[in-house]
Amino acid sequence: MAIRRLHGSAESEENDFLATEEPLEIRVEGHSVAVVMRTPGEDSELAAGFLVTEGLVHAVGDVVDITHQAHCSFPGREGQNPLTQTNGRRGPRRRSGPQFLVADGNVIDVRLRNPKSVDFKKLTRHVFTSSSCGICSKASIEAVRRQFRPIADACEVEPNVLWELPQLLASAQESFQRTGGLHACALFDLTGRLLVVREDVGRHNALDKVVGWALLQDRLPLREQVLLLSGRASFEMLQKALAAGIPIVAAVSAPSSLAAEFARQSGQTLVGFLRGERMNIYAGAGRVRKFARTDGISAHL
Amino acid sequence: MAIRRLHGSAESEENDFLATEEPLEIRVEGHSVAVVMRTPGEDSELAAGFLVTEGLVHAVGDVVDITHQAHCSFPGREGQNPLTQTNGRRGPRRRSGPQFLVADGNVIDVRLRNPKSVDFKKLTRHVFTSSSCGICSKASIEAVRRQFRPIADACEVEPNVLWELPQLLASAQESFQRTGGLHACALFDLTGRLLVVREDVGRHNALDKVVGWALLQDRLPLREQVLLLSGRASFEMLQKALAAGIPIVAAVSAPSSLAAEFARQSGQTLVGFLRGERMNIYAGAGRVRKFARTDGISAHL
Repeated sequence: MAIRRLHGSAESEENDFLATEEPLEIRVEGHSVAVVMRTPGEDSELAAGFLVTEGLVHAVGDVVDITHQAHCSFPGREGQNPLTQTNGRRGPRRRSGPQFLVADGNVIDVRLRNPKSVDFKKLTRHVFTSSSCGICSKASIEAVRRQFRPIADACEVEPNVLWELPQLLASAQESFQRTGGLHACALFDLTGRLLVVREDVGRHNALDKVVGWALLQDRLPLREQVLLLSGRASFEMLQKALAAGIPIVAAVSAPSSLAAEFARQSGQTLVGFLRGERMNIYAGAGRVRKFARTDGISAHL
Repeated sequence: MAIRRLHGSAESEENDFLATEEPLEIRVEGHSVAVVMRTPGEDSELAAGFLVTEGLVHAVGDVVDITHQAHCSFPGREGQNPLTQTNGRRGPRRRSGPQFLVADGNVIDVRLRNPKSVDFKKLTRHVFTSSSCGICSKASIEAVRRQFRPIADACEVEPNVLWELPQLLASAQESFQRTGGLHACALFDLTGRLLVVREDVGRHNALDKVVGWALLQDRLPLREQVLLLSGRASFEMLQKALAAGIPIVAAVSAPSSLAAEFARQSGQTLVGFLRGERMNIYAGAGRVRKFARTDGISAHL
């Protein structure tokens, strides 16, 4: 995309990469259940993960198939890199047609093994609105807790392993380095080995893609694993992590108050401000190993 | 909130401020139209701005009143600072009861001058889902363009004025400096005078609060003004700015592809990566004044 770039009084016309944002309509058995603004790519994972974190799907066997659907077509919408776009010198090709890109389409349909078990009325409304007492924080947390069991997983991770994760994520985020516009979520094992990284213009989508990847690989629930968030940790991010069974959530930036309270009640470990050799532990501190005491009695308490 | 803080091998138990996140149910004439996760405070602005950016309210005269509603109550929910919470040494008081805070409640009801004009069916679904051809980017942009007119405002701003805005915003963001967890939106006039700043755990909410402030002050549409976003610029942020008539949107971080494309079609100016003495102009470059040429003919082209 051609842009005007200013640096002090120096001006230039340049071409720039931007993170692609497009709507995706998620359908279940042909019923529209959500429209999310997302970065195209891994749409099947996004749809699958969305259904896991909404509590509708629990294992890969619940899903029959996930397919992009035909819809109205516009000229020049096929065959381009779905992650970034350019129409100029830096990019692979020049285009004069519409700028919008799609992978295979912006509608995706999920068919389920037991479609009759789905309450579409509930699915098309936000989960919070179904709480019976009107709406307040306590009601929200309790509604989620009724849907997903707390995590009792007794795994432990070393602080040194956690401190390495942001750099491992950054190395894996080629696209981020190019556009600067994407949220990232990554899953690691307890030794710091990267299992998957997903990016999106929406942080909820990035996490849904990770969860959907795990579902489609038949890896749920995600015991003994660490979820790293490139940004902040909100209530909804913790809720999605709980739906996938993730015991440890670490964020580069701050958690919200409700995220911390939620983690305390759900049995999740929540780490915030994971930067350099610093971190704050807001919940479930028992899963982050303590350093050796200076009296030399033990390597770890 | 009591947390465990690690800095290298040094550990401490400390109390920490967190950005408060709670659900707000927005009702219109008693009908629930949305539940948003927001930072309590300026709830009336948030509700008013939400209705403006959804295209339901256009002027302060459209609103009769906005009131918090009673709902189920939990102990210890009254009378605290709604923006941040603490139960420890740094804060104003120690609490043993529930941590959740509300200003006056988490349900707010808006009464309108002409309630019969409201299509509640449309309001309770996301605007994109109402586009007739299924869903794709082009359909989304066109649906929004049908609802809100493009901006033809011919105002101009100096690059030097834009470069000062992030620092002016940071100075105004006391809360951000304390919690690190809030998005901010601020409105400036063309000379860089700060008109209003609003923060929230959700970026859409921060913008809705700014727009609601403007509505309740009878300042809509916001001609000859600059909106500054502390983070990224997405399609929905541009759409909300258009609903309020804002001609110039500047973001500290990256815009998405659809945000840039939307701005080009809506007649808005979109500036990204506004940092130091740098900026990228993605749309509407004519509203950012050019620097003087070195031949000394004119101070500004």
